[in-house]
Amino acid sequence: MPIPPESFLLDRSSPLPLQLQLRRQIIGGVLEGRFRPGEKLPSTRSLAQQLGVARVTVTQAFAELVATDYVCAKDRAGYFISDSIDLALDVGDPAPKAAAFSWGEHLDGRYARAQRSDRVADWRRYDFPFVYGQADPQLVDLAAWRDCAVRALGRREFAPMTGDLYGEDDPELIDYIARHILPRRGIRARPDEILLTLGAQNALWLIAEILLGQGGECAIEDPCYPGLREILSHTRATVRPVSVDPYGLPPQHLPAGLKAVFTTASHQCPTNSTMPVQRRRQLLRIAQERGFAVIEDDYEFEMSFSGSASPALKAMDRAGAVIYIGSFSKSVFPGLRLGYVVADARVVQEARALRGLVLRHPPGVLQRTLANFMSLGHYDAQLNRMRGAYADRRTIMSAAIDSHGLCRTEGGQAGGSCFWLATPYGVDSARLGQVLRDRQVLIEPGPPFFSDRAKGGGFYRLAYSSIPADRIVEGIGRIARAIDEIVRS
Amino acid sequence: MPIPPESFLLDRSSPLPLQLQLRRQIIGGVLEGRFRPGEKLPSTRSLAQQLGVARVTVTQAFAELVATDYVCAKDRAGYFISDSIDLALDVGDPAPKAAAFSWGEHLDGRYARAQRSDRVADWRRYDFPFVYGQADPQLVDLAAWRDCAVRALGRREFAPMTGDLYGEDDPELIDYIARHILPRRGIRARPDEILLTLGAQNALWLIAEILLGQGGECAIEDPCYPGLREILSHTRATVRPVSVDPYGLPPQHLPAGLKAVFTTASHQCPTNSTMPVQRRRQLLRIAQERGFAVIEDDYEFEMSFSGSASPALKAMDRAGAVIYIGSFSKSVFPGLRLGYVVADARVVQEARALRGLVLRHPPGVLQRTLANFMSLGHYDAQLNRMRGAYADRRTIMSAAIDSHGLCRTEGGQAGGSCFWLATPYGVDSARLGQVLRDRQVLIEPGPPFFSDRAKGGGFYRLAYSSIPADRIVEGIGRIARAIDEIVRS
Repeated sequence: MPIPPESFLLDRSSPLPLQLQLRRQIIGGVLEGRFRPGEKLPSTRSLAQQLGVARVTVTQAFAELVATDYVCAKDRAGYFISDSIDLALDVGDPAPKAAAFSWGEHLDGRYARAQRSDRVADWRRYDFPFVYGQADPQLVDLAAWRDCAVRALGRREFAPMTGDLYGEDDPELIDYIARHILPRRGIRARPDEILLTLGAQNALWLIAEILLGQGGECAIEDPCYPGLREILSHTRATVRPVSVDPYGLPPQHLPAGLKAVFTTASHQCPTNSTMPVQRRRQLLRIAQERGFAVIEDDYEFEMSFSGSASPALKAMDRAGAVIYIGSFSKSVFPGLRLGYVVADARVVQEARALRGLVLRHPPGVLQRTLANFMSLGHYDAQLNRMRGAYADRRTIMSAAIDSHGLCRTEGGQAGGSCFWLATPYGVDSARLGQVLRDRQVLIEPGPPFFSDRAKGGGFYRLAYSSIPADRIVEGIGRIARAIDEIVRS
Repeated sequence: MPIPPESFLLDRSSPLPLQLQLRRQIIGGVLEGRFRPGEKLPSTRSLAQQLGVARVTVTQAFAELVATDYVCAKDRAGYFISDSIDLALDVGDPAPKAAAFSWGEHLDGRYARAQRSDRVADWRRYDFPFVYGQADPQLVDLAAWRDCAVRALGRREFAPMTGDLYGEDDPELIDYIARHILPRRGIRARPDEILLTLGAQNALWLIAEILLGQGGECAIEDPCYPGLREILSHTRATVRPVSVDPYGLPPQHLPAGLKAVFTTASHQCPTNSTMPVQRRRQLLRIAQERGFAVIEDDYEFEMSFSGSASPALKAMDRAGAVIYIGSFSKSVFPGLRLGYVVADARVVQEARALRGLVLRHPPGVLQRTLANFMSLGHYDAQLNRMRGAYADRRTIMSAAIDSHGLCRTEGGQAGGSCFWLATPYGVDSARLGQVLRDRQVLIEPGPPFFSDRAKGGGFYRLAYSSIPADRIVEGIGRIARAIDEIVRS
């Protein structure tokens, strides 16, 4: 690709000759890697025109650069960045010539410091990736998604796709969610009770901010989704972790004085337990009596392939105290970044205003593409395919776990996409994770899920959403061997 | 579309007979509008299977509903929601049977209350929409965008498109911005100095939050972009508005003790003035001396069709004190929701962590589609087309403004997409806007741009980015007539 003439700017108030300025810019671009060996420079004519200088100024600058071997001239074809430059030459930080600005005084680094560091971005390079929440190219119907994207990009759809929607959402997608997705969870909602978000992470953040941004006490499950703990740590809320048992969050252990309770009732994250109906009633009754809101993160209900999903808490909520959060990250793909909130219209109105402040709205074209993907039946077809594949993988993995004597925990009867396992006494899951990484196996050690990280050393999560079925047995075998070695050492 | 069997859920612990529960759910769905006249109910067999009840239970429920005319049976085709239901019947709020949850105690409504209310969502219905910042179907190359989207959705691109990227951005897009977009503004940046955002709004929010979330003083231009004032009102910062003159923000009027200054130096929003180079140097020198950060919102540089764009403040910044914000909302389309921050790597790291907390990352498929749109040359072609059309419209509009005697303000020599006008003495622009709405003309009254709204009554903005050239003269004529009438009344 040729380097555009606009890449160069001269400072006419500078005492430096223009020709020298131009040479310095080209050399700087080469040394900093912005211009690469073999790239074509603009023609002397076009560059002179752009800079408003005589053409001879540019010609002279280029000739100097040819002499110093930064640039080479090819007959008729023009000037090119030289191939023979030693790019191993590292000139270090390109910029500041003045005293550097003291950013240390301006930034407290609270967000970077609190960030999760346990996720492995290059998980695809591992042979046995038991990672959670990523997409599987075998299961996503990319061709259908592409067709739906092309439909969403038709002339007729120009306005909803390209426009600034201010605070609004695509009515077609909202309609589909209200009439076809929520009824599967027993939930009834009007359009003004639904808000689209940039995935469930964004939904949790918006709700935490409007309910707890100014302070107050809230309860979370322990262990829980690490992203939720991170979100709450940046509000002024006081967070009370409540240990889950094999039936999820025990309502009788909730402390007094709460403004909100966060729960993954249908599929506890990460233990996979399902809260029984009696306990759900108890939770809602207590919420009503004590006046706290219940935030239900129903993050994986579509993957309940063993037996039908129990109704959502929101479906049983007669008082309107439940804020329901759903996501398309698991059922379509996570890079889509679309999720939703279902709640009392006042909650939705406030969350919508905050969403508008922070990001305006999720991109219109993705909203309409998803609406097409659903209404044309691809969504249900993909879900069926995923459920089938997950059921197969779960069966294989379950057998391998048992035959290798790995220790399961209770929960997970409804399906989902992972197992939650316990290590033998004395085996730290973080260390196990490190040992296994060198053997091409990725697991998720327990510590980030727990309020007291030390408690997580005895647990780890193994997902089967991104590992091919024929890799599972060997992967489990490697885990079992690594555990054995640690126990014996 | 048939109603899915999963739309129904029975509560086995309820004292109500299952058959009655099913009937109530169907009636409820009809009355609430979830089920619509003519929609097909699931077959009795599939519904009985889904609910785990005898088929006769479903058959009896359907028979009852046929008798009460909620449902009609068609031979062999099955059961349908009846067409003859009087849907004018409004049963009001569908839900709470228990005492309603007191959301008033939980929500302070601060976000909804502070929200802008001046934007007209249905602007496309007006014949003369002088609205700012929306897309024009005549100028966006939708066919090229569609091709680029299809490329981005190829199998080879599966991982960057569909995956959870954690905190990362598409390296192809970052590379293109660093090597082809930023050089046009004289800016050099490494990949770790660039962060993608959900549009410039998201960029402003992230930067305001990391610099001023915990308090401190900052200066803004007065008038300025209303969204910035809204963002800052939700931080703990003290905001000092500084009146702009025909050359933008006067650095000598900045108060002492600032942590940050927000400026639209190259194209002041909304007055369109350009800050001269001497004043830019002065601003950067003061920033360095007093230790405040400069946030440069370069929101419309691609639209500088009259004369070449002056270099960005960031290009002159030797100390690294400038945080630069760019956007693709104007140059591609606003519904894309993609923008970027260029700053010291420490600033980018902290903003990236906050972005991850709030929304993870902009959708991967849009990042890659935009990278394709640029590298295949469509971006530059579209910019040229836009600049040409805007220049034509500006010429027409400028003549119409002068011939009708409307009062321009100084500034706007570099082009852009709007004029900033003054009303005659005694004519309030908010009232003018209301009068014109009834005459199919949309203008943007001044008050939302000013810290003291009353000062804005004498100004209004007229954009030509979404109005066809052949509507401009008549639109300006209507504005002039409305002003005349108000003056005389």
